[in-house]
Amino acid sequence: MRIGLIGSGRVATHLALALYGQGHQVVSIYSRKRVQAEQLAMVVSGSAVEDIASIDFSVDVLLIAVTDQAISTIVASVAKYKPNCLVVHTSGSTNISVLSEHIKHTGVFYPLQTFSMGCDIHWPDVPLLIEASDKKRLLTLRVLAQSLSNHVYEYCSEQRLSLHLAAVFASNFSNYCYDVAQQILDKQAVDFQLLYPLMQATVQKAMKSAPVSVQTGPAARHDDVIIKQHQKLLEQLMPNEAQLYTVLSEQIQKRHQLG
Amino acid sequence: MRIGLIGSGRVATHLALALYGQGHQVVSIYSRKRVQAEQLAMVVSGSAVEDIASIDFSVDVLLIAVTDQAISTIVASVAKYKPNCLVVHTSGSTNISVLSEHIKHTGVFYPLQTFSMGCDIHWPDVPLLIEASDKKRLLTLRVLAQSLSNHVYEYCSEQRLSLHLAAVFASNFSNYCYDVAQQILDKQAVDFQLLYPLMQATVQKAMKSAPVSVQTGPAARHDDVIIKQHQKLLEQLMPNEAQLYTVLSEQIQKRHQLG
Repeated sequence: MRIGLIGSGRVATHLALALYGQGHQVVSIYSRKRVQAEQLAMVVSGSAVEDIASIDFSVDVLLIAVTDQAISTIVASVAKYKPNCLVVHTSGSTNISVLSEHIKHTGVFYPLQTFSMGCDIHWPDVPLLIEASDKKRLLTLRVLAQSLSNHVYEYCSEQRLSLHLAAVFASNFSNYCYDVAQQILDKQAVDFQLLYPLMQATVQKAMKSAPVSVQTGPAARHDDVIIKQHQKLLEQLMPNEAQLYTVLSEQIQKRHQLG
Repeated sequence: MRIGLIGSGRVATHLALALYGQGHQVVSIYSRKRVQAEQLAMVVSGSAVEDIASIDFSVDVLLIAVTDQAISTIVASVAKYKPNCLVVHTSGSTNISVLSEHIKHTGVFYPLQTFSMGCDIHWPDVPLLIEASDKKRLLTLRVLAQSLSNHVYEYCSEQRLSLHLAAVFASNFSNYCYDVAQQILDKQAVDFQLLYPLMQATVQKAMKSAPVSVQTGPAARHDDVIIKQHQKLLEQLMPNEAQLYTVLSEQIQKRHQLG
């Protein structure tokens, strides 16, 4: 397919590379960050354009892969040119209506994955959540999505918002817990790598069973002596995280009432 | 070696099976939970004993693998029989002094892993943290630990406490985040398995780079519109987790100030 791209951040970059790798043409790329757009265009043999007016609207799909906050501004600019192509955003939590109120053929193409620069994405395993303004456009998006991933799902905007919220807990918040763990160990001159087997085992178990059934630790077993010791140490090492320890421990204790 | 065991819970069971598997003799097992002790004794060809007085104190190592809260009571009972063997607890956060104030030869044998019944442990990868009252006993514990794991470390009680605290963040708290994610998706009839690739990628990235360098999500990019949407949805679906979302988002925002 012929693809247009707005954006040059992490999601835009990873998507452009993956689509190009699957033989799609990424014909024009627009980004406020001109240099990034040019770099990306070079890699995928496309053209960086200077303004939205210069975007090639004869593409099959125009992907808007920008921060959620920027979507509505971009949509307002794009709508001026009354594009006849399928215009799609890539956001988990943004309703399709942001597009469909202003543009004729619209859709959502949301990759449920965490994107960092320099980290490879194994696209066949990435769940792609699609939504479209009508069946014909849904078919287009399904074909595009299936060229990247073996896991393509149709979900409405409300379900996608729930998935994004759940993903924030499962990915962003768990990563922050790793971050706090590393900061604690750094302060004590202990190697963070010691925790790797534990981190891996925790994910493996949560996927094999339900997370609630494999919850361990002082809060789950209501071990108040250890909880107090940890809170005391945390007050010394990282007082700003003491509230987080307390809130998480209280929630785990409520979830795991002693029988 | 000849091993005595006090306890029949998850850590005690996994340890007994691993030691038996490596050719050690688990000669006597005591637990308040008599039936569990008998079951475990049967599996490892040992004897369940009815009371602490009946424990075989002629073993090389007596392992106390009970909840942290129970350790001091057990130690007081064991101390009455003035054991000459090496007496060891398996707790991350309990100081060796709990033992050494009452017993002659003491140590700590802490497996840094999350233990659930029915989930296999790959012992060669499990970090084992050891500490002992003197060099001779430390050597004994090192030999025992190296028979199970390729990752044996000597840490003092203070460092071990920090490691346990960090492990609570990296394992117990991240698992609770998975649990909340599953509860959100259950309420919306969306399959939790959709998050598996994301959960795996998050751990892989945190181990490849530092967690702080791969933090993504609405809080890290200070996307207040999405944060508000998530909080609104959470108030509907799981109001008890709204405070947790707020605290975690605030901490991530503080850690990732916009440049």
